[in-house]
Amino acid sequence: MKLRCKPYTLNLRHPFTIARGSRTQQANVLVEIEDGSDIGYGEAAPSGRYGEDQESVLKFLGRVDLVAFKDPFQLEDILSFVDVLAPGNESAKAAIDIALHDLIGKKLKIPLWKLWGLNPDKTPVTSFTIGIDTPEIIEEKIREAQEFPVLKVKVGVPDDEEIIRTIRKFTDKPLRVDANEGWKSKELARDKILWLENQGVELVEQPLPAQDIEGIAWLRNHIHVPIIADESIRTLHDLPELRGVYDGINIKLMKCGGVRQALKMIHAARAMSLKIMLGCMIESSVAIAAAAHISPLVDYADLDGNLLITNEPFTGLKQTSGKIILPSEPGLGIKPC
Amino acid sequence: MKLRCKPYTLNLRHPFTIARGSRTQQANVLVEIEDGSDIGYGEAAPSGRYGEDQESVLKFLGRVDLVAFKDPFQLEDILSFVDVLAPGNESAKAAIDIALHDLIGKKLKIPLWKLWGLNPDKTPVTSFTIGIDTPEIIEEKIREAQEFPVLKVKVGVPDDEEIIRTIRKFTDKPLRVDANEGWKSKELARDKILWLENQGVELVEQPLPAQDIEGIAWLRNHIHVPIIADESIRTLHDLPELRGVYDGINIKLMKCGGVRQALKMIHAARAMSLKIMLGCMIESSVAIAAAAHISPLVDYADLDGNLLITNEPFTGLKQTSGKIILPSEPGLGIKPC
Repeated sequence: MKLRCKPYTLNLRHPFTIARGSRTQQANVLVEIEDGSDIGYGEAAPSGRYGEDQESVLKFLGRVDLVAFKDPFQLEDILSFVDVLAPGNESAKAAIDIALHDLIGKKLKIPLWKLWGLNPDKTPVTSFTIGIDTPEIIEEKIREAQEFPVLKVKVGVPDDEEIIRTIRKFTDKPLRVDANEGWKSKELARDKILWLENQGVELVEQPLPAQDIEGIAWLRNHIHVPIIADESIRTLHDLPELRGVYDGINIKLMKCGGVRQALKMIHAARAMSLKIMLGCMIESSVAIAAAAHISPLVDYADLDGNLLITNEPFTGLKQTSGKIILPSEPGLGIKPC
Repeated sequence: MKLRCKPYTLNLRHPFTIARGSRTQQANVLVEIEDGSDIGYGEAAPSGRYGEDQESVLKFLGRVDLVAFKDPFQLEDILSFVDVLAPGNESAKAAIDIALHDLIGKKLKIPLWKLWGLNPDKTPVTSFTIGIDTPEIIEEKIREAQEFPVLKVKVGVPDDEEIIRTIRKFTDKPLRVDANEGWKSKELARDKILWLENQGVELVEQPLPAQDIEGIAWLRNHIHVPIIADESIRTLHDLPELRGVYDGINIKLMKCGGVRQALKMIHAARAMSLKIMLGCMIESSVAIAAAAHISPLVDYADLDGNLLITNEPFTGLKQTSGKIILPSEPGLGIKPC
């Protein structure tokens, strides 16, 4: 099999600001894996938080030679071969995993949800993300998010209350808040969350820095809404430490290395009675579709990365009033525009 | 889809004795699921230890009406529907799970190992089980097990040492011992295991009664070989309590409800850094093949149930010097004799 990669830049509709910083573009990498008759598409959306960028992805993928592998079905072997080339690089690894799954689905002529025995009608509703912004832009974003029944709001900055008050002027939709490690003490997080609970917030994501598991255990006894781990959980082996502390985890293909790993994490999280959110980075429909196909297995979806961009390079994935509509075409079911 | 079931009796080559009791036959149930064009085969091998027998399996299966389901690919929905019909009944549920997977593989025209992305060359060697017996019969069994490089020995009775001494007269192969909850105190288990360690025993299975997790934690600090849970672990949700206590788990399709659950348990066990053994009951090649197809994912196999019987109703599954040979035919890859 042959692997090709193509760097490209996604343009954001609005500057996107979270507790860690702000940006207007996202530099990703498209991967194509060809076996002589079909092409599978994959995508890497690298995050600086996890030590990756477009350059590191291209460098990693440049080292991946799949010529020795003739058969995309040999997932366990191929992905293990890729995994041991270097530690980390999870978004680059995810791109390969996604492309192989797309290729397998195309060869079997079935969509991926069918390969995994899932019911396409059981997709969750995705939340729509409102980044940190001025009241004027927040008002505009809320209008744009009109059809979405649940909003995810980025907090973790000094004027959190101002953001929420602005949102509450325009909508009474359920809110999920994501602090992205922004609150630096457990007492601050407690005060913020108790206030947010009165504003109709139904869950809080990553209130404290990733390593502060003890802080979460304390917080768990001082607030009421579920606490979801994001930066605290990357891969399968991070899971056991979170049991009995966090209420759930946010799985992202770009953190864990792809759908095969994500499925393993879903099963392990269920064994530990953890709730599961499926999240994303700023991604095109390629990576979002991959996550969407496993979404019937999760409790919460936050798969709006492709909705925040203006130059979507692929087509085929839809949502209606936030509910994810899975394609019936083979593999990921998406095509270049 | 239509489900048919057929009770049948497997005859054992030798009376099979473990710490709990003895028998010469095993009463199982064959399941066939038909979707109009293909037939998938499944098998239930009920165990009294888990409250099942042939009659309870037939009763449970008699309540399963699959007419509402047209598509065997809807595994998550069908198996959830079956699961909530009644608690327990895991071997009956496993028969349905196995038949659906066989059917799916046949429809896609691929063997199950390929559906799961596995390498068929990476199957483990299965151990061959020597039940509790007289020295004369043990000698005969060891001759029959000549081609198998690893033996599993049933212990947990007062004359354990006698059994092992007899075996050691005839072979120096690595031994795995299974006490089947037979040692009733942690001190007795410690003394037995320390002696067994000097006899070339490489692991010990279920030394204490299933509920005695504290006893295992104590034992873990007093012996050296890995301790594998069998009766202590049935399904996915039993797993978290075993972490940091047992070194590994024995997954059996008849305990957990089939291959879909077994795969989930494998991933959850890996998250917890537990070793994985794949075991069986007295089963024909139908259920053994289902386990064999996922065996490239495990550390130890004890899949010899079909080798202990004289009236095997199916053909297609082989082993060479104990190494499991996976069929390349679609689905389970086995056929009625």
